[in-house]
Amino acid sequence: MTKKYQIVGIGNAMVDVLTHADDSFLTDNGIEKGIMQLIDMDRAVELYGKVGPATEISGGSAANTIAGAAHLGGRVAYVGKVKDDQLGAIFAHDLRAQGVDYETALAAADAPQETGRCIVLVSPCGERSMNTYLGVTEFLHPSDIIESQMADAEWIYLEGYRFDGPQSHEAFAKANAACKGAGGKVSLTLSDPFCVERHRTAFREMIKSDVDLLFCNRSEMLSMYQTEDFDAALNEAATEVEIVACTDSDQGAHILSGGKRWHAPAIPTDIVDATGAGDLFAGAFLWGLTNGYALETCGNMGCVAASEVISHIGARAEADLTETFRKSGLIS
Amino acid sequence: MTKKYQIVGIGNAMVDVLTHADDSFLTDNGIEKGIMQLIDMDRAVELYGKVGPATEISGGSAANTIAGAAHLGGRVAYVGKVKDDQLGAIFAHDLRAQGVDYETALAAADAPQETGRCIVLVSPCGERSMNTYLGVTEFLHPSDIIESQMADAEWIYLEGYRFDGPQSHEAFAKANAACKGAGGKVSLTLSDPFCVERHRTAFREMIKSDVDLLFCNRSEMLSMYQTEDFDAALNEAATEVEIVACTDSDQGAHILSGGKRWHAPAIPTDIVDATGAGDLFAGAFLWGLTNGYALETCGNMGCVAASEVISHIGARAEADLTETFRKSGLIS
Repeated sequence: MTKKYQIVGIGNAMVDVLTHADDSFLTDNGIEKGIMQLIDMDRAVELYGKVGPATEISGGSAANTIAGAAHLGGRVAYVGKVKDDQLGAIFAHDLRAQGVDYETALAAADAPQETGRCIVLVSPCGERSMNTYLGVTEFLHPSDIIESQMADAEWIYLEGYRFDGPQSHEAFAKANAACKGAGGKVSLTLSDPFCVERHRTAFREMIKSDVDLLFCNRSEMLSMYQTEDFDAALNEAATEVEIVACTDSDQGAHILSGGKRWHAPAIPTDIVDATGAGDLFAGAFLWGLTNGYALETCGNMGCVAASEVISHIGARAEADLTETFRKSGLIS
Repeated sequence: MTKKYQIVGIGNAMVDVLTHADDSFLTDNGIEKGIMQLIDMDRAVELYGKVGPATEISGGSAANTIAGAAHLGGRVAYVGKVKDDQLGAIFAHDLRAQGVDYETALAAADAPQETGRCIVLVSPCGERSMNTYLGVTEFLHPSDIIESQMADAEWIYLEGYRFDGPQSHEAFAKANAACKGAGGKVSLTLSDPFCVERHRTAFREMIKSDVDLLFCNRSEMLSMYQTEDFDAALNEAATEVEIVACTDSDQGAHILSGGKRWHAPAIPTDIVDATGAGDLFAGAFLWGLTNGYALETCGNMGCVAASEVISHIGARAEADLTETFRKSGLIS
């Protein structure tokens, strides 16, 4: 029987505040280049007061992934918390307008926190340094996980970043149990090497017990398995999950499953803003997987989608990816 | 004595909500292509619910103009009303981050209206159809006009759109008197042919009594002087104001002053989003004028700036216009 959803994502709901900044700005303001750092509201206000004019675009890692799969025509839903405020309304609109089912209860208008936002400083080279104020999205409660929705999913997609914050592990456990109990499968993205540092044990336990498909990039993979030997880490991961899909910047992506390994080449492009590359890779990969494409093709789809999203500002697809897949010979 | 400000702009403060839409969407939803239409909150909610994923970028016609002049290094200020809400904070941040003095009192958090926004539907050809919910910006009160600030301006720049709404004419009269009383000059943009229809008499009176520099485009000029003879309209306007600066789409701009006439050619570019072309033309023109450049050069600067802003989404300059002016030989 076909399930209602091909993919249901769970993650930190946020609006990206995108602006350009050079390296001296990063240094002067104590911002680590190329990674995600968590900030509180005071720091968010301080930093926002210093950055240049910005553009607001809905973001959130798993939300970008799910929006990408929806863009391709996938049956998808998203779970993540925003507040009943203007940024929350923007986030919800952009997901629903893309065809995503999104019904997570809003945090009340009088909650002390606001809707989460990520101040994304885009370097001239396209690399992005993310400064995340989680706001209300930190308080996604296990009661926000609707078991029937998880049971209706072929795959759920868990955002590693969402391991930060109270009750997140409990919420994920509830989602996994409901999904797997109904025959669904669990995918996880490690999100960020520092996120792996913070949650290595919890990640490892969940990988061994629940995860069927692991998304990560090279540095997250090395951090996860605490080695400098990339191939060894890939192989170890492949013994723990059914599918490993590991991106590797301009080297494309490595897919491992059932004792086999494939390589999907990166699609050369002018990098304008690297935000969302991994997210769109995962969205396209999962769309391909749940539509019955071979793993190698799914990897190629991921690389094509990632290439599109880094060619412009913002972490949501702009070009018609279905058409791009057709032109690339990935679909007929 | 050098005045504190080269230009102080007064206009409708808003955040643009930019999204793509094809002609059938416009037809199905009763939206006139290529113009600005005023909508109420109910219509704004309805329309927003129907459009696709969007990008939020600070806008507002005069605010775009002033931001453009600030981008070029001008000493500028802006007057326009937003609310103490998230969109208001975005609007204020983006102006200040560009170097604009912006101190208009916020509408209170419990005001029944919200910060103004403009749902901009960008057609595949780049033309934009604007649906404007004025919100609190409609209620800019004469008391929001600080006479000492107007007296500190070499030029004030009045947005024609701001003629909509109660007390706007009174507010402009106060600004003009304070500016001109201190030896400053008044520029006005007609904003939109339908805006001219709504306010022709008031515009005409102000042009004759106060305006030194009139900005408009071809269709606004024809509407203003109720003729189909473009040259006749230009010549009539030139008898009423010191300088006429009239843009003419891909024909560039026509500048008339002191019995002379110049033509500034348009700079060919791929139009992605025409939003802000006239605004940036005026910003660059006024920057040139207040820096002592010849009128013909000011016109060329306007065309170069307009060309930049239509080459990308959003109505604020992204490229370094100073550098572009240098490469174009407009400045040394």
